[in-house]
Amino acid sequence: MKNIRIGITGYGNIGRGVETAIRQNDDMELVGVFTRRNPESITLQTENVKVYSVEDALFMVDKIDVMILCGGSATDLPVQSPQFALMFNIVDSYDNHSKIPEHFAAVDNAAKVGGNLAIISTGWDPGLFSLNRLFGNAFLPKGNDYTFWGKGVSQGHSDAIRRVEGVLDAKQYTIPCEDAIEAACCGKNPTLTTHEKHTRECFVVASPTADKKRIESDIKNMPSYFADYDTTVHFISQEELEKNHSRLPHGGFVIRSGHTGDGENKHLIKYSLNLDSNPEFTGNVLVAFARAAYRLSNRGEIGAKTVFDIAPIDLSPESREDLIKRLL
Amino acid sequence: MKNIRIGITGYGNIGRGVETAIRQNDDMELVGVFTRRNPESITLQTENVKVYSVEDALFMVDKIDVMILCGGSATDLPVQSPQFALMFNIVDSYDNHSKIPEHFAAVDNAAKVGGNLAIISTGWDPGLFSLNRLFGNAFLPKGNDYTFWGKGVSQGHSDAIRRVEGVLDAKQYTIPCEDAIEAACCGKNPTLTTHEKHTRECFVVASPTADKKRIESDIKNMPSYFADYDTTVHFISQEELEKNHSRLPHGGFVIRSGHTGDGENKHLIKYSLNLDSNPEFTGNVLVAFARAAYRLSNRGEIGAKTVFDIAPIDLSPESREDLIKRLL
Repeated sequence: MKNIRIGITGYGNIGRGVETAIRQNDDMELVGVFTRRNPESITLQTENVKVYSVEDALFMVDKIDVMILCGGSATDLPVQSPQFALMFNIVDSYDNHSKIPEHFAAVDNAAKVGGNLAIISTGWDPGLFSLNRLFGNAFLPKGNDYTFWGKGVSQGHSDAIRRVEGVLDAKQYTIPCEDAIEAACCGKNPTLTTHEKHTRECFVVASPTADKKRIESDIKNMPSYFADYDTTVHFISQEELEKNHSRLPHGGFVIRSGHTGDGENKHLIKYSLNLDSNPEFTGNVLVAFARAAYRLSNRGEIGAKTVFDIAPIDLSPESREDLIKRLL
Repeated sequence: MKNIRIGITGYGNIGRGVETAIRQNDDMELVGVFTRRNPESITLQTENVKVYSVEDALFMVDKIDVMILCGGSATDLPVQSPQFALMFNIVDSYDNHSKIPEHFAAVDNAAKVGGNLAIISTGWDPGLFSLNRLFGNAFLPKGNDYTFWGKGVSQGHSDAIRRVEGVLDAKQYTIPCEDAIEAACCGKNPTLTTHEKHTRECFVVASPTADKKRIESDIKNMPSYFADYDTTVHFISQEELEKNHSRLPHGGFVIRSGHTGDGENKHLIKYSLNLDSNPEFTGNVLVAFARAAYRLSNRGEIGAKTVFDIAPIDLSPESREDLIKRLL
């Protein structure tokens, strides 16, 4: 099988996760990593692969089948995804749910101009969780959706704590509430807000001279991040933070609770992820969708797609015959 | 939106489940039910829909967009699916895993001759569980698959018990073992046989004159059905069986346990179904795939497909814009 030649743009946690993922997939090959930093400052995990400046990507259009964009959704991807879709087939993990329609439109336009195929908003939420919300609604048209996140590290909330005066470092875990899960699963179809569904647990390293009472109060009262939640704050040492909270676990689940007939028969569909490393699993999902982007492009398709548009078979390296025999 | 005109062939549990499902989907309309029994002996749940003899199906080719075949996998579908694929777009729930490749080939050939589109082996296993096995393998290439069934009624095993001398009626529940689930989920990737993963619980109505000890022994020693399993037999009255065991619940789960990096990061994907009515949920899945069959056929596609070939968006009645906004 011809190798699918992959490029990575952005070498943070997700970029490294994609690099790790490529090594698990024999039909893929990492061709280059593109960065806005000084390329010489970066050492890859993969031997014999070069780091380039993002500006040099244009010179690599013939050498890369799919460019996986690993920048952030706040400022990187809104610019990079359309820009790169002019030159390459791309996959991104744009995750700002409310702005996906305009991101889709911008990427679709650029990909069509460039004659390329783009799959946006892959990863696990949006991505696998979205797929399961669609499946749940299609198979149980009468019912309710519940998405829970965690237990896992929220980078955004950890960053927010680190901006509090007197905080040296911090990690925040989002934790789904057992009572809310139970209520969603029991078939009573409750209405649950995000803060009823989750609690927040913070591990904070404070400066020795800081007022811990004030820090705790600043965190717990922070609007939109913590104020609406049941929040716990633990003060720990930098050593303890590094020893016990250096990983990036995450997960969660999508529940569809519905009924058939005149409502007498209840049904529950539950999809759950339990991930030791959020960026490495996300990297694995991105490369599977890169495989699909490559195949759709080879079939002459252009423009933007979402996870909803991808036939499952295009995510797998196995042949149709093997898949039917082994997994159907 | 133009209604998708559905026909049902075979009016057993699944056929009635499909009829119930159609009522939950506003873009669908039941046009007729086809049976090998005397059509006048059947009363539908839906008003103003006619019951026809299967032989009359040929006269209805212009009036039905998708025929959903609800016969059994042992003898009905191997004949009916190719036969009907000559005349109609079809969906079936053929579930004899080991013979799917030859069923696929026969249906593919007939559908191509007839210029029709056929989706075979839909339902939840094969079907939704197959999809989740494929997704699990694509997103975690290094890992192990586990499928558990139950707690639920196995019709095949219930039938087997009813064939034992002195048994008047029976229901058999397949129950997944907690220990095996725990072992599969803990990341140790054990090798588990089907009988290590499940126990079997039987509720039996014996004839008053029958030897219960002998019946229990006959059941527990029945090759392939019960002999390899930890089996429990309860003798109950016909009234109790009807009162407490008349429903057809089922479910189960698909687990993919894998790792990324050099194995230090473990990940668990779990998909579970908990169904009050196996045939009604199966009916819901069949009609969602009938929607996809209709759309693929409208786009000019012909031949046999499996659940692996269907883009999720084609299962949903909602527009792309709404799906992106609401569920992505």
